[in-house]
Amino acid sequence: MGLLFNSIKTFDDLFVSVLQQIYYAERKIGEQLEVMIGKATAPELRAGFEQHLQETRTQYSRLQEVFRMNGVEAEEATCPAIDGILKAGNSMAGDIDDKQVLDAGLTHAAQLVEHYEIAQYGTLIAWAKEMDRPDCAAVLQQSLDEEKATDAKLTQIAEARINRQAEIQTS
Amino acid sequence: MGLLFNSIKTFDDLFVSVLQQIYYAERKIGEQLEVMIGKATAPELRAGFEQHLQETRTQYSRLQEVFRMNGVEAEEATCPAIDGILKAGNSMAGDIDDKQVLDAGLTHAAQLVEHYEIAQYGTLIAWAKEMDRPDCAAVLQQSLDEEKATDAKLTQIAEARINRQAEIQTS
Repeated sequence: MGLLFNSIKTFDDLFVSVLQQIYYAERKIGEQLEVMIGKATAPELRAGFEQHLQETRTQYSRLQEVFRMNGVEAEEATCPAIDGILKAGNSMAGDIDDKQVLDAGLTHAAQLVEHYEIAQYGTLIAWAKEMDRPDCAAVLQQSLDEEKATDAKLTQIAEARINRQAEIQTS
Repeated sequence: MGLLFNSIKTFDDLFVSVLQQIYYAERKIGEQLEVMIGKATAPELRAGFEQHLQETRTQYSRLQEVFRMNGVEAEEATCPAIDGILKAGNSMAGDIDDKQVLDAGLTHAAQLVEHYEIAQYGTLIAWAKEMDRPDCAAVLQQSLDEEKATDAKLTQIAEARINRQAEIQTS
């Protein structure tokens, strides 16, 4: 496990600490996505989760690259934020029987995860620029772009479901 | 405390469950902001937290209005996601001595909270529209707009700090 917070003395330490948190988070998110793929009913939602699982694996490798670029060993730091977000999603997903309601809940749980990742990568990119490391910022930017695209796709999937519902109700 | 997840049978139940989670979260966020105001060093960061504390109190009242509009009692449901996010922020903030590094960490912790709220309100608004309740969606939209503005302001504060740093280094 990585840095303890009380060993954060400098800005560099803070950067590495958040890098270690998102490194831990990407592994946990990958595990969670495998569970969510098994639970999703709508084919487009399942396909969305499958695509994001592939991206998550690439993002995990990118983080190893950023650790290397900073001359530090790739290490995880437990992140209570992602643990809580995944726990909330699991509690919800495990206990809804209705397939349509469950799909809506899973989409929402995934969007909470995306927004966590958007906040983490957004901060890391700003800090990398502040540390005059545009090379690190560029690698992290690829992951941020993917997270934002996934969030937009999840919104599209939710809206498509809403439009289908409206058509059913008016037909 | 509110609905248990295993009592979520319908889409309406899911909506109320997430409403209960954000109702719990807004109270906890208000408590946390009071702590963060005490820790922040940069005057613009402290002022940003103070303004958001006022908004948080208004958002809490708006949620009571949405409960009323749905004919259900305003109740909280423990949300492990916000608990984890606040725990992560507290662990970090309690253990950094350097004031500038702490301010950067606090800004980041606040942006994780903002993104949680953006995801929660974004979903609730989409669902309210799906349930043909544009009146509820409109009330929630006011809070979403405030959360997005706060996130943008935090980014501005972080960038201003970065620019000041750059000026110090080149002067």
